[in-house]
Amino acid sequence: MKVIVDFCLVPVGVEVSVSKYIVECERILSETGLKTQLHAYGTNIEGEWDDVFAAVKRCHERVHEMGVLRISSTIRLGTRTDREQSMDDKIRSVREKLQTS
Amino acid sequence: MKVIVDFCLVPVGVEVSVSKYIVECERILSETGLKTQLHAYGTNIEGEWDDVFAAVKRCHERVHEMGVLRISSTIRLGTRTDREQSMDDKIRSVREKLQTS
Amino acid sequence: MKVIVDFCLVPVGVEVSVSKYIVECERILSETGLKTQLHAYGTNIEGEWDDVFAAVKRCHERVHEMGVLRISSTIRLGTRTDREQSMDDKIRSVREKLQTS
Amino acid sequence: MKVIVDFCLVPVGVEVSVSKYIVECERILSETGLKTQLHAYGTNIEGEWDDVFAAVKRCHERVHEMGVLRISSTIRLGTRTDREQSMDDKIRSVREKLQTS
Repeated sequence: MKVIVDFCLVPVGVEVSVSKYIVECERILSETGLKTQLHAYGTNIEGEWDDVFAAVKRCHERVHEMGVLRISSTIRLGTRTDREQSMDDKIRSVREKLQTS
Repeated sequence: MKVIVDFCLVPVGVEVSVSKYIVECERILSETGLKTQLHAYGTNIEGEWDDVFAAVKRCHERVHEMGVLRISSTIRLGTRTDREQSMDDKIRSVREKLQTS
Repeated sequence: MKVIVDFCLVPVGVEVSVSKYIVECERILSETGLKTQLHAYGTNIEGEWDDVFAAVKRCHERVHEMGVLRISSTIRLGTRTDREQSMDDKIRSVREKLQTS
Repeated sequence: MKVIVDFCLVPVGVEVSVSKYIVECERILSETGLKTQLHAYGTNIEGEWDDVFAAVKRCHERVHEMGVLRISSTIRLGTRTDREQSMDDKIRSVREKLQTS
């Protein structure tokens, strides 16, 4: 089962600036070979369910290893069985309709 | 790694009333033996990471088997390494402070 | 327009235990007279759109006043125009179907 | 109070393909003059709290006007009082640290 996920990890109980933890997660995600896209409030990830959630788990484990005692993340996750749809397809579908109307 | 999750599954492309799909997920979750608590906009689930996410995956698979072509879920997920904290602990902690002030 | 919301506020850059901020939000919400229900990973709120979002804004303002420099919240929000549905209706609908099958 | 929001609207009870509703929301958001950025699982929006949430409300109202009986959206929302931070700042902060290490 393929899944498109939008993942946002929030370290709790540390300093206000949390980008170093997000950077570490970006590194983990890029090592997985999964297709990902960073945005201003999370990261889109596309792939097989087990691969994607193994990557999410690895991010939590690694951020805890960096000394963060508490993490509160949010995930949006979409699956569909009618057809394959990539992250690019989703954005293109909206952009094309925006231009032609 | 223990996790407390708040899971909300939204079937897309079917009728407006989606409770039969939520009921099926509740059944799946109860069969896992994981501690769960239904609320008006999702279900809290507490347990080992792999068990919890296997249950979430099983819900997506089952709702697709019921004929739903597209699902868009959201998950909040909390992990902490400083101490074990149950769902009951979280609620009790807030309720006690509310009463004593 | 009525809305049912599920609101979870996460203070960032403070101590690991954040219950005192959640308690303050619960107080603010109870003062509004809106119907609310605390659960282990957020609070359900039911009411008119403007009232509900004014309450959410007041929570952010108040938690900042308490000295928290950064907040990252999540909200699920449901609206429907086919009929009025309360938080209790949603839970009852699932519970009844669970028992009769 | 400035806010950075990540907004994802999910129409319920309609066809599987929902891009025409997302397109309409993108139009509404672009008319507001708020800074926005579409991604594969939502749209980032940056601006004053009241302006941003008025836009979100307008999206719900408009999608209902288009005939959708039920909507289930999710919002991430971040506020901070230590300094102004734009969506671009957030992404740049992560990208720079990724490159220099």
